[in-house]
Amino acid sequence: MRIVLVLEYNGSRYCGWQSQPAGGSVQDILEIALSKIACHTIRVVTAGRTDAGVHALYQVVHFDTQAQRPLNAWVRGVNRFLPHDIAVSWASVVSDQFHARYGAYERRYLYLLLNRPVRPGLCHARVGWLHHSLDLTRMQVAAKMLLGEHDFTAFRAAACQAKSPVRRLTRLEIYRQNNFFIFEICANAFLQHMVRNIVGSLVYVGKGKYAPEWMQTLLESRNRTYAAPTFSAAGLYLAGVSYDSIWQLPDFIEYPFEICLPAILR
Amino acid sequence: MRIVLVLEYNGSRYCGWQSQPAGGSVQDILEIALSKIACHTIRVVTAGRTDAGVHALYQVVHFDTQAQRPLNAWVRGVNRFLPHDIAVSWASVVSDQFHARYGAYERRYLYLLLNRPVRPGLCHARVGWLHHSLDLTRMQVAAKMLLGEHDFTAFRAAACQAKSPVRRLTRLEIYRQNNFFIFEICANAFLQHMVRNIVGSLVYVGKGKYAPEWMQTLLESRNRTYAAPTFSAAGLYLAGVSYDSIWQLPDFIEYPFEICLPAILR
Repeated sequence: MRIVLVLEYNGSRYCGWQSQPAGGSVQDILEIALSKIACHTIRVVTAGRTDAGVHALYQVVHFDTQAQRPLNAWVRGVNRFLPHDIAVSWASVVSDQFHARYGAYERRYLYLLLNRPVRPGLCHARVGWLHHSLDLTRMQVAAKMLLGEHDFTAFRAAACQAKSPVRRLTRLEIYRQNNFFIFEICANAFLQHMVRNIVGSLVYVGKGKYAPEWMQTLLESRNRTYAAPTFSAAGLYLAGVSYDSIWQLPDFIEYPFEICLPAILR
Repeated sequence: MRIVLVLEYNGSRYCGWQSQPAGGSVQDILEIALSKIACHTIRVVTAGRTDAGVHALYQVVHFDTQAQRPLNAWVRGVNRFLPHDIAVSWASVVSDQFHARYGAYERRYLYLLLNRPVRPGLCHARVGWLHHSLDLTRMQVAAKMLLGEHDFTAFRAAACQAKSPVRRLTRLEIYRQNNFFIFEICANAFLQHMVRNIVGSLVYVGKGKYAPEWMQTLLESRNRTYAAPTFSAAGLYLAGVSYDSIWQLPDFIEYPFEICLPAILR
Protein backbone atom coordinates (compact mmCIF):
# COMPACT_ATOMS: atom_id res chain seq x y z
CA MET A 1 0.00 0.00 0.00
CA ARG A 2 1.34 3.43 -0.93
CA ILE A 3 0.80 6.44 1.37
CA VAL A 4 1.38 10.09 0.45
CA LEU A 5 2.07 12.74 3.11
CA VAL A 6 2.24 16.52 3.11
CA LEU A 7 4.51 17.93 5.82
CA GLU A 8 5.94 21.19 7.12
CA TYR A 9 9.14 21.88 9.02
CA ASN A 10 11.40 24.57 10.34
CA GLY A 11 14.75 23.55 8.86
CA SER A 12 16.95 25.69 11.09
CA ARG A 13 18.03 22.85 13.40
CA TYR A 14 18.60 20.28 10.62
CA CYS A 15 21.37 19.37 8.22
CA GLY A 16 18.84 19.39 5.36
CA TRP A 17 16.33 16.92 3.99
CA GLN A 18 18.59 14.17 2.67
CA SER A 19 19.33 11.12 4.84
CA GLN A 20 22.86 11.14 6.32
CA PRO A 21 24.97 8.21 7.56
CA ALA A 22 25.03 9.80 11.04
CA GLY A 23 21.30 10.62 10.96
CA GLY A 24 19.84 13.97 12.03
CA SER A 25 18.32 15.01 8.69
CA VAL A 26 14.60 15.71 8.36
CA GLN A 27 14.27 12.51 6.27
CA ASP A 28 16.04 10.42 8.95
CA ILE A 29 13.79 11.76 11.70
CA LEU A 30 10.61 11.31 9.66
CA GLU A 31 11.54 7.73 8.70
CA ILE A 32 12.14 6.82 12.37
CA ALA A 33 8.71 8.19 13.35
CA LEU A 34 6.94 6.46 10.44
CA SER A 35 8.70 3.17 11.20
CA LYS A 36 7.40 3.31 14.78
CA ILE A 37 3.81 3.60 13.52
CA ALA A 38 4.30 0.93 10.83
CA CYS A 39 6.27 -1.47 13.07
CA HIS A 40 8.68 -2.03 10.17
CA THR A 41 11.38 0.06 8.49
CA ILE A 42 10.00 2.80 6.25
CA ARG A 43 11.93 4.60 3.51
CA VAL A 44 10.36 7.68 1.92
CA VAL A 45 10.66 9.26 -1.53
CA THR A 46 10.48 13.06 -1.55
CA ALA A 47 9.42 15.75 -4.02
CA GLY A 48 12.37 18.01 -3.16
CA ARG A 49 15.58 17.66 -1.15
CA THR A 50 15.83 20.92 0.78
CA ASP A 51 19.26 22.17 1.92
CA ALA A 52 20.40 22.64 5.53
CA GLY A 53 18.47 25.50 7.14
CA VAL A 54 15.75 25.58 4.45
CA HIS A 55 12.11 25.35 5.63
CA ALA A 56 9.04 23.68 4.16
CA LEU A 57 5.40 24.69 4.25
CA TYR A 58 4.37 21.99 1.81
CA GLN A 59 6.78 19.12 1.31
CA VAL A 60 5.47 15.88 -0.25
CA VAL A 61 6.70 12.32 0.32
CA HIS A 62 5.41 8.85 -0.45
CA PHE A 63 6.25 5.46 1.05
CA ASP A 64 5.12 1.84 0.85
CA THR A 65 3.95 -0.17 3.83
CA GLN A 66 2.17 -3.41 4.69
CA ALA A 67 0.79 -1.86 7.88
CA GLN A 68 -2.97 -1.31 7.98
CA ARG A 69 -3.53 1.90 9.95
CA PRO A 70 -6.30 4.50 10.08
CA LEU A 71 -5.21 7.59 8.10
CA ASN A 72 -5.01 9.66 11.26
CA ALA A 73 -2.22 7.38 12.52
CA TRP A 74 -0.09 8.68 9.62
CA VAL A 75 -0.81 12.28 10.70
CA ARG A 76 -1.36 12.77 14.42
CA GLY A 77 0.15 9.41 15.34
CA VAL A 78 3.38 10.22 13.48
CA ASN A 79 3.40 13.75 14.89
CA ARG A 80 3.63 12.30 18.40
CA PHE A 81 7.02 10.83 17.41
CA LEU A 82 8.28 13.92 15.54
CA PRO A 83 10.11 16.85 17.18
CA HIS A 84 8.13 20.08 17.65
CA ASP A 85 9.52 21.69 14.50
CA ILE A 86 8.38 18.98 12.05
CA ALA A 87 4.71 18.07 11.49
CA VAL A 88 2.74 15.93 9.03
CA SER A 89 -0.30 17.99 7.96
CA TRP A 90 -2.12 15.56 5.61
CA ALA A 91 -2.07 11.89 4.53
CA SER A 92 -3.85 9.73 1.98
CA VAL A 93 -3.69 6.26 0.43
CA VAL A 94 -2.68 6.39 -3.26
CA SER A 95 -2.14 3.86 -6.02
CA ASP A 96 1.36 2.62 -6.80
CA GLN A 97 1.26 4.86 -9.88
CA PHE A 98 1.80 7.93 -7.70
CA HIS A 99 5.42 9.06 -7.32
CA ALA A 100 6.32 12.04 -5.10
CA ARG A 101 9.37 12.93 -7.19
CA TYR A 102 8.61 11.88 -10.78
CA GLY A 103 4.92 12.84 -10.57
CA ALA A 104 5.63 16.43 -9.48
CA TYR A 105 5.37 18.75 -12.48
CA GLU A 106 6.08 21.98 -10.60
CA ARG A 107 7.81 23.10 -7.39
CA ARG A 108 7.16 26.45 -5.73
CA TYR A 109 9.58 28.22 -3.40
CA LEU A 110 9.25 31.48 -1.46
CA TYR A 111 12.22 33.52 -0.28
CA LEU A 112 11.73 36.08 2.52
CA LEU A 113 14.31 38.83 2.73
CA LEU A 114 14.35 41.38 5.55
CA ASN A 115 15.74 44.64 4.18
CA ARG A 116 16.65 47.06 6.98
CA PRO A 117 19.81 48.39 8.65
CA VAL A 118 19.39 46.28 11.80
CA ARG A 119 19.72 42.48 11.87
CA PRO A 120 16.60 40.42 12.68
CA GLY A 121 15.86 39.54 16.32
CA LEU A 122 12.42 37.97 16.23
CA CYS A 123 12.86 36.32 12.81
CA HIS A 124 16.40 34.97 13.11
CA ALA A 125 16.93 31.80 11.00
CA ARG A 126 13.58 32.36 9.28
CA VAL A 127 14.46 35.25 6.94
CA GLY A 128 17.41 36.32 4.86
CA TRP A 129 18.75 39.77 5.81
CA LEU A 130 20.36 42.60 3.87
CA HIS A 131 21.14 46.10 5.15
CA HIS A 132 21.73 47.73 1.72
CA SER A 133 18.49 49.17 0.40
CA LEU A 134 17.03 47.42 -2.65
CA ASP A 135 15.18 48.69 -5.74
CA LEU A 136 12.13 46.53 -6.41
CA THR A 137 11.59 47.60 -10.03
CA ARG A 138 15.16 46.83 -11.09
CA MET A 139 14.87 43.34 -9.62
CA GLN A 140 11.51 42.77 -11.32
CA VAL A 141 12.97 43.72 -14.71
CA ALA A 142 15.92 41.36 -14.22
CA ALA A 143 13.64 38.55 -12.99
CA LYS A 144 11.67 38.47 -16.26
CA MET A 145 14.86 37.56 -18.17
CA LEU A 146 15.01 34.20 -16.39
CA LEU A 147 11.50 33.04 -17.28
CA GLY A 148 11.14 30.09 -19.66
CA GLU A 149 13.29 27.05 -20.46
CA HIS A 150 17.02 27.70 -20.13
CA ASP A 151 20.34 26.15 -19.29
CA PHE A 152 20.74 27.38 -15.67
CA THR A 153 24.40 26.37 -15.28
CA ALA A 154 25.23 29.90 -14.07
CA PHE A 155 22.98 29.34 -11.02
CA ARG A 156 23.99 25.74 -10.28
CA ALA A 157 26.04 24.51 -7.32
CA ALA A 158 29.35 22.83 -8.18
CA ALA A 159 28.16 19.69 -6.36
CA CYS A 160 24.81 19.51 -8.21
CA GLN A 161 24.13 15.94 -9.35
CA ALA A 162 21.37 16.65 -11.91
CA LYS A 163 21.98 15.12 -15.35
CA SER A 164 20.79 18.21 -17.22
CA PRO A 165 21.17 21.91 -16.32
CA VAL A 166 18.02 22.77 -18.29
CA ARG A 167 14.98 23.84 -16.25
CA ARG A 168 11.72 25.61 -17.11
CA LEU A 169 11.12 28.62 -14.87
CA THR A 170 7.38 29.30 -14.90
CA ARG A 171 7.06 32.11 -12.36
CA LEU A 172 9.41 34.62 -10.72
CA GLU A 173 7.55 37.39 -8.93
CA ILE A 174 8.91 39.81 -6.33
CA TYR A 175 6.67 41.60 -3.83
CA ARG A 176 7.46 44.18 -1.19
CA GLN A 177 5.67 44.39 2.19
CA ASN A 178 7.00 46.98 4.63
CA ASN A 179 10.69 46.13 4.97
CA PHE A 180 10.36 42.62 3.54
CA PHE A 181 10.91 41.45 -0.01
CA ILE A 182 9.20 38.21 -0.98
CA PHE A 183 10.45 36.23 -3.97
CA GLU A 184 8.04 33.63 -5.41
CA ILE A 185 9.74 31.15 -7.76
CA CYS A 186 8.13 28.24 -9.62
CA ALA A 187 9.81 25.77 -11.99
CA ASN A 188 9.34 22.22 -13.19
CA ALA A 189 12.35 21.39 -10.99
CA PHE A 190 15.36 23.18 -9.49
CA LEU A 191 19.12 22.60 -9.63
CA GLN A 192 21.02 22.55 -6.34
CA HIS A 193 21.19 26.07 -4.79
CA MET A 194 19.37 27.46 -7.85
CA VAL A 195 16.82 29.55 -5.91
CA ARG A 196 19.43 30.97 -3.53
CA ASN A 197 21.79 31.77 -6.41
CA ILE A 198 18.99 33.51 -8.32
CA VAL A 199 18.01 35.53 -5.21
CA GLY A 200 21.64 36.50 -4.63
CA SER A 201 22.01 37.68 -8.25
CA LEU A 202 18.72 39.62 -8.13
CA VAL A 203 20.00 41.31 -4.96
CA TYR A 204 23.15 42.38 -6.88
CA VAL A 205 20.83 44.10 -9.37
CA GLY A 206 18.55 45.48 -6.64
CA LYS A 207 21.37 47.17 -4.78
CA GLY A 208 22.79 48.67 -7.97
CA LYS A 209 25.94 46.59 -8.42
CA TYR A 210 24.81 45.62 -11.94
CA ALA A 211 22.16 46.78 -14.42
CA PRO A 212 19.09 44.56 -14.85
CA GLU A 213 20.40 43.46 -18.27
CA TRP A 214 23.33 41.78 -16.53
CA MET A 215 20.92 38.96 -15.62
CA GLN A 216 20.52 38.05 -19.31
CA THR A 217 24.29 38.09 -19.83
CA LEU A 218 24.80 36.00 -16.71
CA LEU A 219 22.23 33.40 -17.80
CA GLU A 220 23.78 33.11 -21.27
CA SER A 221 27.32 32.87 -19.85
CA ARG A 222 26.49 29.50 -18.24
CA ASN A 223 29.33 30.37 -15.89
CA ARG A 224 28.68 30.00 -12.15
CA THR A 225 31.70 32.17 -11.28
CA TYR A 226 29.97 35.27 -12.72
CA ALA A 227 26.89 34.96 -10.48
CA ALA A 228 26.48 36.24 -6.91
CA PRO A 229 27.36 34.08 -3.90
CA THR A 230 24.67 31.66 -2.75
CA PHE A 231 22.26 33.63 -0.56
CA SER A 232 21.45 32.54 3.01
CA ALA A 233 19.30 29.40 3.43
CA ALA A 234 17.40 31.00 6.33
CA GLY A 235 14.77 32.78 4.20
CA LEU A 236 13.95 29.88 1.85
CA TYR A 237 10.65 27.96 2.05
CA LEU A 238 9.46 25.05 -0.11
CA ALA A 239 5.87 26.29 -0.42
CA GLY A 240 4.17 23.88 -2.80
CA VAL A 241 4.49 20.88 -5.12
CA SER A 242 2.03 20.34 -7.99
CA TYR A 243 0.74 16.97 -9.22
CA ASP A 244 -1.93 15.87 -11.66
CA SER A 245 -5.33 16.62 -10.13
CA ILE A 246 -6.27 12.90 -10.25
CA TRP A 247 -4.13 12.49 -7.13
CA GLN A 248 -6.29 14.97 -5.18
CA LEU A 249 -3.55 16.44 -3.03
CA PRO A 250 -4.64 19.43 -0.89
CA ASP A 251 -4.37 22.91 -2.38
CA PHE A 252 -1.71 25.34 -1.37
CA ILE A 253 -2.69 29.00 -1.70
CA GLU A 254 -1.53 30.27 -5.07
CA TYR A 255 -1.45 34.01 -4.38
CA PRO A 256 -1.40 34.49 -0.62
CA PHE A 257 -0.06 38.03 -0.71
CA GLU A 258 -2.89 39.47 -2.78
CA ILE A 259 -5.36 37.85 -0.44
CA CYS A 260 -3.69 39.24 2.64
CA LEU A 261 -2.71 42.64 1.32
CA PRO A 262 -5.74 44.63 2.51
CA ALA A 263 -5.30 43.31 6.04
CA ILE A 264 -1.55 43.88 6.11
CA LEU A 265 -1.62 47.41 4.79
CA ARG A 266 -4.62 48.66 6.77
CA MET B 1 22.26 61.23 29.90
CA ARG B 2 19.12 59.22 29.27
CA ILE B 3 18.86 56.83 26.31
CA VAL B 4 15.68 55.21 25.00
CA LEU B 5 15.76 51.97 22.99
CA VAL B 6 13.22 50.02 20.95
CA LEU B 7 13.95 46.30 20.77
CA GLU B 8 12.50 43.04 19.48
CA TYR B 9 12.97 39.49 20.70
CA ASN B 10 11.81 35.94 20.32
CA GLY B 11 10.95 35.02 23.90
CA SER B 12 10.83 31.26 23.45
CA ARG B 13 14.28 30.60 24.97
CA TYR B 14 13.89 33.01 27.91
CA CYS B 15 12.34 32.97 31.37
CA GLY B 16 10.60 36.27 30.60
CA TRP B 17 11.60 39.91 30.67
CA GLN B 18 12.16 40.47 34.39
CA SER B 19 15.69 40.21 35.82
CA GLN B 20 16.26 36.99 37.83
CA PRO B 21 18.84 36.30 40.57
CA ALA B 22 20.31 33.53 38.40
CA GLY B 23 20.23 35.66 35.22
CA GLY B 24 18.96 34.41 31.88
CA SER B 25 16.05 36.83 31.43
CA VAL B 26 15.85 39.18 28.44
CA GLN B 27 16.51 42.11 30.80
CA ASP B 28 19.62 40.42 32.26
CA ILE B 29 21.04 39.72 28.81
CA LEU B 30 20.29 43.22 27.52
CA GLU B 31 21.87 44.86 30.59
CA ILE B 32 25.06 42.83 30.16
CA ALA B 33 25.34 43.91 26.51
CA LEU B 34 24.62 47.57 27.31
CA SER B 35 27.13 47.53 30.17
CA LYS B 36 29.84 46.31 27.77
CA ILE B 37 29.22 49.28 25.49
CA ALA B 38 28.96 51.77 28.38
CA CYS B 39 31.94 50.35 30.34
CA HIS B 40 29.85 50.66 33.51
CA THR B 41 26.85 48.79 34.94
CA ILE B 42 23.57 49.66 33.20
CA ARG B 43 20.10 49.04 34.63
CA VAL B 44 17.10 49.53 32.36
CA VAL B 45 13.48 50.51 32.99
CA THR B 46 10.97 48.83 30.71
CA ALA B 47 7.50 49.64 29.34
CA GLY B 48 6.21 46.10 29.88
CA ARG B 49 7.46 42.98 31.66
CA THR B 50 6.65 40.14 29.26
CA ASP B 51 6.17 36.60 30.63
CA ALA B 52 8.31 33.57 29.83
CA GLY B 53 7.86 32.56 26.17
CA VAL B 54 6.24 35.88 25.15
CA HIS B 55 7.75 37.75 22.20
CA ALA B 56 8.23 41.44 21.44
CA LEU B 57 8.15 43.34 18.17
CA TYR B 58 8.34 46.71 19.89
CA GLN B 59 9.53 46.76 23.49
CA VAL B 60 10.74 50.08 24.95
CA VAL B 61 13.37 50.64 27.65
CA HIS B 62 15.29 53.63 28.99
CA PHE B 63 18.53 53.84 30.97
CA ASP B 64 20.94 56.46 32.26
CA THR B 65 24.63 56.50 31.40
CA GLN B 66 27.66 58.77 31.61
CA ALA B 67 29.17 57.13 28.54
CA GLN B 68 29.41 59.32 25.43
CA ARG B 69 28.78 57.04 22.46
CA PRO B 70 27.54 57.56 18.89
CA LEU B 71 23.88 56.47 18.69
CA ASN B 72 24.76 53.55 16.46
CA ALA B 73 26.81 52.07 19.31
CA TRP B 74 23.53 51.68 21.21
CA VAL B 75 22.00 49.81 18.23
CA ARG B 76 24.50 47.85 16.14
CA GLY B 77 27.17 47.93 18.82
CA VAL B 78 24.83 46.42 21.41
CA ASN B 79 23.50 43.92 18.87
CA ARG B 80 26.98 42.47 18.54
CA PHE B 81 26.77 41.46 22.21
CA LEU B 82 23.18 40.19 22.09
CA PRO B 83 22.16 36.64 21.13
CA HIS B 84 20.60 36.13 17.68
CA ASP B 85 17.02 36.23 18.99
CA ILE B 86 17.23 39.68 20.63
CA ALA B 87 17.94 42.89 18.67
CA VAL B 88 17.85 46.63 19.38
CA SER B 89 16.13 48.29 16.41
CA TRP B 90 16.29 51.98 17.37
CA ALA B 91 17.94 54.33 19.90
CA SER B 92 17.77 58.01 20.80
CA VAL B 93 18.93 60.45 23.48
CA VAL B 94 16.00 61.80 25.54
CA SER B 95 15.60 64.24 28.42
CA ASP B 96 15.35 62.92 31.98
CA GLN B 97 11.61 63.66 31.78
CA PHE B 98 11.07 60.58 29.60
CA HIS B 99 10.11 57.41 31.46
CA ALA B 100 9.63 54.11 29.59
CA ARG B 101 7.07 52.83 32.10
CA TYR B 102 5.24 55.88 33.49
CA GLY B 103 5.27 57.76 30.19
CA ALA B 104 3.58 54.96 28.25
CA TYR B 105 -0.13 55.71 27.85
CA GLU B 106 -1.02 52.62 25.82
CA ARG B 107 0.36 49.11 25.27
CA ARG B 108 -0.56 46.97 22.28
CA TYR B 109 -0.39 43.18 22.12
CA LEU B 110 -1.09 40.75 19.29
CA TYR B 111 -2.01 37.12 19.83
CA LEU B 112 -1.56 34.69 16.95
CA LEU B 113 -3.63 31.48 17.17
CA LEU B 114 -3.31 28.59 14.72
CA ASN B 115 -6.70 26.88 14.40
CA ARG B 116 -6.44 23.52 12.63
CA PRO B 117 -6.54 19.83 13.55
CA VAL B 118 -2.77 19.35 13.24
CA ARG B 119 -0.23 20.90 15.62
CA PRO B 120 2.20 23.51 14.21
CA GLY B 121 5.53 22.36 12.78
CA LEU B 122 7.02 25.47 11.18
CA CYS B 123 5.57 27.89 13.77
CA HIS B 124 6.19 26.00 17.00
CA ALA B 125 6.70 28.37 19.99
CA ARG B 126 5.54 31.32 17.89
CA VAL B 127 1.78 30.66 17.76
CA GLY B 128 -0.88 29.36 20.10
CA TRP B 129 -2.70 26.29 18.76
CA LEU B 130 -6.23 24.96 19.04
CA HIS B 131 -7.73 22.01 17.15
CA HIS B 132 -11.42 22.78 17.92
CA SER B 133 -12.87 25.02 15.20
CA LEU B 134 -13.70 28.58 16.29
CA ASP B 135 -16.52 30.95 15.34
CA LEU B 136 -15.13 34.42 14.59
CA THR B 137 -18.42 36.31 14.94
CA ARG B 138 -19.20 34.90 18.39
CA MET B 139 -15.75 35.93 19.62
CA GLN B 140 -16.14 39.43 18.11
CA VAL B 141 -19.47 39.91 19.92
CA ALA B 142 -17.97 38.79 23.23
CA ALA B 143 -14.88 40.98 22.73
CA LYS B 144 -16.94 44.19 22.56
CA MET B 145 -18.18 43.58 26.12
CA LEU B 146 -14.66 44.08 27.49
CA LEU B 147 -14.04 47.50 25.92
CA GLY B 148 -13.79 50.48 28.25
CA GLU B 149 -12.65 50.97 31.85
CA HIS B 150 -13.39 47.98 34.08
CA ASP B 151 -12.22 46.02 37.09
CA PHE B 152 -10.45 43.12 35.32
CA THR B 153 -10.03 40.94 38.42
CA ALA B 154 -11.61 37.99 36.55
CA PHE B 155 -8.66 38.04 34.09
CA ARG B 156 -5.88 38.68 36.61
CA ALA B 157 -3.19 36.19 37.71
CA ALA B 158 -3.19 35.29 41.40
CA ALA B 159 0.41 36.56 41.66
CA CYS B 160 -0.34 39.93 39.99
CA GLN B 161 1.31 42.76 41.96
CA ALA B 162 -0.64 45.72 40.51
CA LYS B 163 -2.23 48.01 43.12
CA SER B 164 -5.49 48.37 41.20
CA PRO B 165 -7.35 45.83 39.01
CA VAL B 166 -8.90 48.64 36.94
CA ARG B 167 -7.69 48.99 33.38
CA ARG B 168 -9.01 50.80 30.29
CA LEU B 169 -9.28 48.48 27.27
CA THR B 170 -9.22 50.68 24.17
CA ARG B 171 -9.16 48.09 21.39
CA LEU B 172 -9.97 44.39 21.03
CA GLU B 173 -10.22 43.28 17.41
CA ILE B 174 -10.11 39.74 16.05
CA TYR B 175 -9.12 38.96 12.47
CA ARG B 176 -9.05 35.68 10.57
CA GLN B 177 -6.47 34.81 7.88
CA ASN B 178 -6.67 31.32 6.47
CA ASN B 179 -6.46 29.07 9.54
CA PHE B 180 -5.00 31.76 11.82
CA PHE B 181 -6.88 34.03 14.21
CA ILE B 182 -5.14 37.26 15.17
CA PHE B 183 -6.24 39.09 18.33
CA GLU B 184 -5.25 42.75 18.64
CA ILE B 185 -5.56 44.15 22.18
CA CYS B 186 -4.75 47.67 23.37
CA ALA B 187 -5.09 49.09 26.88
CA ASN B 188 -3.54 51.80 29.04
CA ALA B 189 -1.81 48.94 30.87
CA PHE B 190 -2.33 45.22 31.49
CA LEU B 191 -2.59 43.06 34.61
CA GLN B 192 -0.42 39.93 34.79
CA HIS B 193 -1.66 37.25 32.31
CA MET B 194 -4.56 39.53 31.35
CA VAL B 195 -4.16 39.13 27.58
CA ARG B 196 -3.75 35.35 27.77
CA ASN B 197 -6.74 35.03 30.12
CA ILE B 198 -8.89 37.16 27.78
CA VAL B 199 -7.81 35.07 24.76
CA GLY B 200 -8.57 31.85 26.65
CA SER B 201 -12.04 33.10 27.56
CA LEU B 202 -12.75 34.31 24.01
CA VAL B 203 -11.75 30.84 22.79
CA TYR B 204 -14.33 29.32 25.21
CA VAL B 205 -16.98 31.45 23.45
CA GLY B 206 -15.56 30.75 19.98
CA LYS B 207 -15.72 27.00 20.37
CA GLY B 208 -19.28 27.15 21.75
CA LYS B 209 -18.68 26.30 25.40
CA TYR B 210 -20.44 29.51 26.43
CA ALA B 211 -22.65 32.14 24.76
CA PRO B 212 -21.02 35.50 23.95
CA GLU B 213 -23.00 37.13 26.82
CA TRP B 214 -21.03 34.98 29.26
CA MET B 215 -18.15 37.41 28.80
CA GLN B 216 -20.17 40.21 30.41
CA THR B 217 -21.14 37.96 33.32
CA LEU B 218 -17.53 36.85 33.72
CA LEU B 219 -16.22 40.44 33.76
CA GLU B 220 -18.80 41.49 36.34
CA SER B 221 -18.13 38.44 38.53
CA ARG B 222 -14.59 39.70 39.27
CA ASN B 223 -13.86 36.05 39.96
CA ARG B 224 -10.79 34.56 38.29
CA THR B 225 -12.00 31.00 38.94
CA TYR B 226 -14.87 31.47 36.44
CA ALA B 227 -12.59 32.42 33.54
CA ALA B 228 -10.77 30.05 31.17
CA PRO B 229 -7.25 28.78 31.92
CA THR B 230 -4.39 31.09 30.91
CA PHE B 231 -3.76 30.50 27.20
CA SER B 232 -0.29 29.54 25.90
CA ALA B 233 2.43 32.24 25.95
CA ALA B 234 3.75 31.10 22.56
CA GLY B 235 1.37 33.21 20.43
CA LEU B 236 1.71 36.47 22.37
CA TYR B 237 3.62 39.50 21.01
CA LEU B 238 4.15 42.92 22.60
CA ALA B 239 3.62 44.90 19.40
CA GLY B 240 3.71 48.56 20.42
CA VAL B 241 3.97 51.09 23.23
CA SER B 242 2.58 54.62 22.80
CA TYR B 243 4.10 57.80 24.24
CA ASP B 244 3.41 61.49 23.83
CA SER B 245 4.52 62.53 20.34
CA ILE B 246 7.03 65.03 21.82
CA TRP B 247 9.31 62.04 22.48
CA GLN B 248 9.39 61.19 18.75
CA LEU B 249 9.61 57.42 19.11
CA PRO B 250 9.37 55.55 15.79
CA ASP B 251 5.99 54.37 14.55
CA PHE B 252 5.16 50.76 15.08
CA ILE B 253 3.65 48.92 12.13
CA GLU B 254 -0.08 48.85 12.60
CA TYR B 255 -0.44 45.23 11.55
CA PRO B 256 3.04 43.80 11.68
CA PHE B 257 3.93 41.72 8.76
CA GLU B 258 6.55 39.78 10.67
CA ILE B 259 4.14 37.89 12.84
CA CYS B 260 1.57 37.46 10.08
CA LEU B 261 4.07 35.70 7.86
CA PRO B 262 2.99 32.23 8.95
CA ALA B 263 -0.59 33.09 8.11
CA ILE B 264 0.34 34.65 4.82
CA LEU B 265 2.55 31.81 3.72
CA ARG B 266 -0.16 29.19 4.03
